[in-house]
Amino acid sequence: MASRGPSLPRITDVAALAGVSTSTASKALNDTGQLREETRERVRRAAEQLGFTPDSRGRALSSGRSFTVGLITTDSSGRFSIPIMLGAEDALSAGEMGLLLCDTRDDPLREQHYLRSLVSRRVDGIIVTGRRTEPRAPIDVPIPVVYAFSPSTDPSDTSVIADDHGGAASTVRHLLSLGRRRIAHISGPVSHHSAQTRAAATVEAAAGALVGEPMHGEWSERWGRHAVDVLLRTSPDVDAISCGSDQIARGVCDRLRELGRSVPDDIAVTGYDNWSVMALASRPPLTTVDLELEELGRRTANLLLDAIAGSPHRGLMELPTRLVTRESTLGT
Amino acid sequence: MASRGPSLPRITDVAALAGVSTSTASKALNDTGQLREETRERVRRAAEQLGFTPDSRGRALSSGRSFTVGLITTDSSGRFSIPIMLGAEDALSAGEMGLLLCDTRDDPLREQHYLRSLVSRRVDGIIVTGRRTEPRAPIDVPIPVVYAFSPSTDPSDTSVIADDHGGAASTVRHLLSLGRRRIAHISGPVSHHSAQTRAAATVEAAAGALVGEPMHGEWSERWGRHAVDVLLRTSPDVDAISCGSDQIARGVCDRLRELGRSVPDDIAVTGYDNWSVMALASRPPLTTVDLELEELGRRTANLLLDAIAGSPHRGLMELPTRLVTRESTLGT
Repeated sequence: MASRGPSLPRITDVAALAGVSTSTASKALNDTGQLREETRERVRRAAEQLGFTPDSRGRALSSGRSFTVGLITTDSSGRFSIPIMLGAEDALSAGEMGLLLCDTRDDPLREQHYLRSLVSRRVDGIIVTGRRTEPRAPIDVPIPVVYAFSPSTDPSDTSVIADDHGGAASTVRHLLSLGRRRIAHISGPVSHHSAQTRAAATVEAAAGALVGEPMHGEWSERWGRHAVDVLLRTSPDVDAISCGSDQIARGVCDRLRELGRSVPDDIAVTGYDNWSVMALASRPPLTTVDLELEELGRRTANLLLDAIAGSPHRGLMELPTRLVTRESTLGT
Repeated sequence: MASRGPSLPRITDVAALAGVSTSTASKALNDTGQLREETRERVRRAAEQLGFTPDSRGRALSSGRSFTVGLITTDSSGRFSIPIMLGAEDALSAGEMGLLLCDTRDDPLREQHYLRSLVSRRVDGIIVTGRRTEPRAPIDVPIPVVYAFSPSTDPSDTSVIADDHGGAASTVRHLLSLGRRRIAHISGPVSHHSAQTRAAATVEAAAGALVGEPMHGEWSERWGRHAVDVLLRTSPDVDAISCGSDQIARGVCDRLRELGRSVPDDIAVTGYDNWSVMALASRPPLTTVDLELEELGRRTANLLLDAIAGSPHRGLMELPTRLVTRESTLGT
């Protein structure tokens, strides 16, 4: 071990310094056995002096647990999975549980490799997350699993997702409460589950106040700018635009400004995601929906801890989103 | 274990199905001992049929290694540490090493807690990273450590950083090669190491072509827009602006367009970071510097693996950056 730099102090070093046997030192540090308090204290001081740290792997082996959880993600760019991961890590670390990161890069072979490795490490459970809200095929492992953001197609699995329907409806109700009565919807690809859900919720909540059909395109600022041109040709009297993402909403605001339309005086605009780099940099800053992904990660971790403790909660859990109001609807 | 769902098949189950003793099954699966090939094959088939996965923790304990590395990050938002982490994870997983994520949220007490936990788990080494390029105080653990992006203040530690000086110089050389001779520099806070380094490199590389002093402000689009107004009052004949970040450069491009100045025909603009959501969404898309952070993560992991294997490389290693050219300097 010398090659690894200064070696870790061992229990035998602690025992030698305290002048006791190894088994006495072990009992003193584990608060077991019958020892005089003075002896226990001497061993504790020796351990402290040497910087001795007990080997938690022994505890893990004897308890049948590794105090480790695996996180499988397909989201290399991390826009959605990073806050989920940080929330999960926060909740797990409070219980001395470690989080092993496994980035599959959307490669099924890589996912299989990670699952074998995690099972072989005897992790106590696995969190599965991804970048899309489409349900995904469940993983086949004999340990507890919770799906976050990308739910499992199996309804008896435990999945935690954001309430996209409620989130989109909340922006429309906000626009209606401000007196807007000609609301258009511009969103991402119609093939995306999240774009479909948000569009359906918008249509339902806007009812008679909806202008035209939901407009689907890319998740990009460019599409937001282009969609404004199309929209104003057919519906020049629109007074609000609810967008499927902050990127689209930012493009919408930029184009409206270029065309001399004031946001929100002429047209109120809402985004979706509360992605600060878009929502705050937008001119004006965006009223938007926060998916509360870090909280989603915490809830996921706590559900997994319950399952590990033998009390699984099965089914799909939808967490509430939060409407964040800013100048794009309220003005200055 | 019943409470944890279906329990993992054990070596005893494999032995029973194959009709051999547990020790024979173990020898067969570990390719040790003297067994007939037929017996070995029967055990392998039984293991496969049951989905038996060997417990890697035994190997870890007997080898004195945990095949696990801890990653300490202070970068909750993850802009810089996420690609480093993914690169490290990629390099480590190839060697069956797991990466334990520890997000300290810039809290020194939390960092201490994580360090104790990682040492107690007997991780084989630790990667320390952060959001700033300022050198940071080293951590005190008796196992190999490599610092990534945020180097250690101790020059005998192993640190891997991006060559910010070379990166900034490469944008100026590019502008000079395009015939630009009146180059201004707009960057982030003068208190930030990265802003200082990039400004110094720009001043040196631009020499007589530099217009005025480097301008320092926020890392924001808003500052980029404001700085353009200030700059054009004092130096209306500037023909290039090198920026300390893509966010600043995007704001610069927006303001120039609003003022009727063409990018790059009138004024060429360069960014820094190659942050796609800024660099590609900018109008026009930005020529910028890619810090190659994922590669930096891979190199960090490989240096750590060398140190774990007993061959540490000490000192500061600067990795080359990559100039990415786009319309903001080249035009369409």
